[in-house]
Amino acid sequence: MGRERDMTDEQSIRAVIDARIAALEAGDGSAAVAPLSPGIVAFEVAGPLVMPPEQVRDASATEAWLGSFDGPVRIEVDELAIHVGGDVAFAHSLNRLAGSRGGQPIDLWLRSTLGFRRADGEWTIVHAHTSVPRG
Amino acid sequence: MGRERDMTDEQSIRAVIDARIAALEAGDGSAAVAPLSPGIVAFEVAGPLVMPPEQVRDASATEAWLGSFDGPVRIEVDELAIHVGGDVAFAHSLNRLAGSRGGQPIDLWLRSTLGFRRADGEWTIVHAHTSVPRG
Repeated sequence: MGRERDMTDEQSIRAVIDARIAALEAGDGSAAVAPLSPGIVAFEVAGPLVMPPEQVRDASATEAWLGSFDGPVRIEVDELAIHVGGDVAFAHSLNRLAGSRGGQPIDLWLRSTLGFRRADGEWTIVHAHTSVPRG
Repeated sequence: MGRERDMTDEQSIRAVIDARIAALEAGDGSAAVAPLSPGIVAFEVAGPLVMPPEQVRDASATEAWLGSFDGPVRIEVDELAIHVGGDVAFAHSLNRLAGSRGGQPIDLWLRSTLGFRRADGEWTIVHAHTSVPRG
């Protein structure tokens, strides 16, 4: 598709990840959930073993979560690796989430894995696994 | 390679997963770590943010962990999905770990994501992410 023209597959995947992070930092729920597949299988930090797709893709819920912070959050993507084969890809990284809530600073490292499929030239996120190590 | 002849890519990946699970259930550390790439990036349930490859691939440590249970563990792989594109693949599942330790039954659901690459006809695990939801 247009925006992906002249990009390598890795760059296209990276652009999807960057756009989602930027949307989260901007408090834009709709943009943040835009790349998530309707059938996404999501393993989230908290909550049930598998988070239902309609919950993961809920823009308002995403904005409510972002709104629980005192101001914008910052998310740093570290040690990103992207593996692409044909129309399938996966990426993993360490994501540092920083902000504050109720005046208390939050500075948390998350492990993130994303699974992608490409259809009609567009990469979508079909699997997401985010966690912190159990203490 | 020989053992993968006549199998679809999905079946080959499934065979790697099944062999690793069978090895863990049999207490065979060497077989359990055999499919793990020397460069594996592992996000484990407990421990550091990223588990060093030499630790994840340590057959003796794997057997010591298995030996901490009263008898064999049983691992049930549920809701397995496999995505393959060329020489890259990822899989995710819910794995039920059952056994007992010090006479206390253990029955735990883990979320598992595995990332694969194929080289010289052999699939190896280059990324593993295992977690439980934070309570």
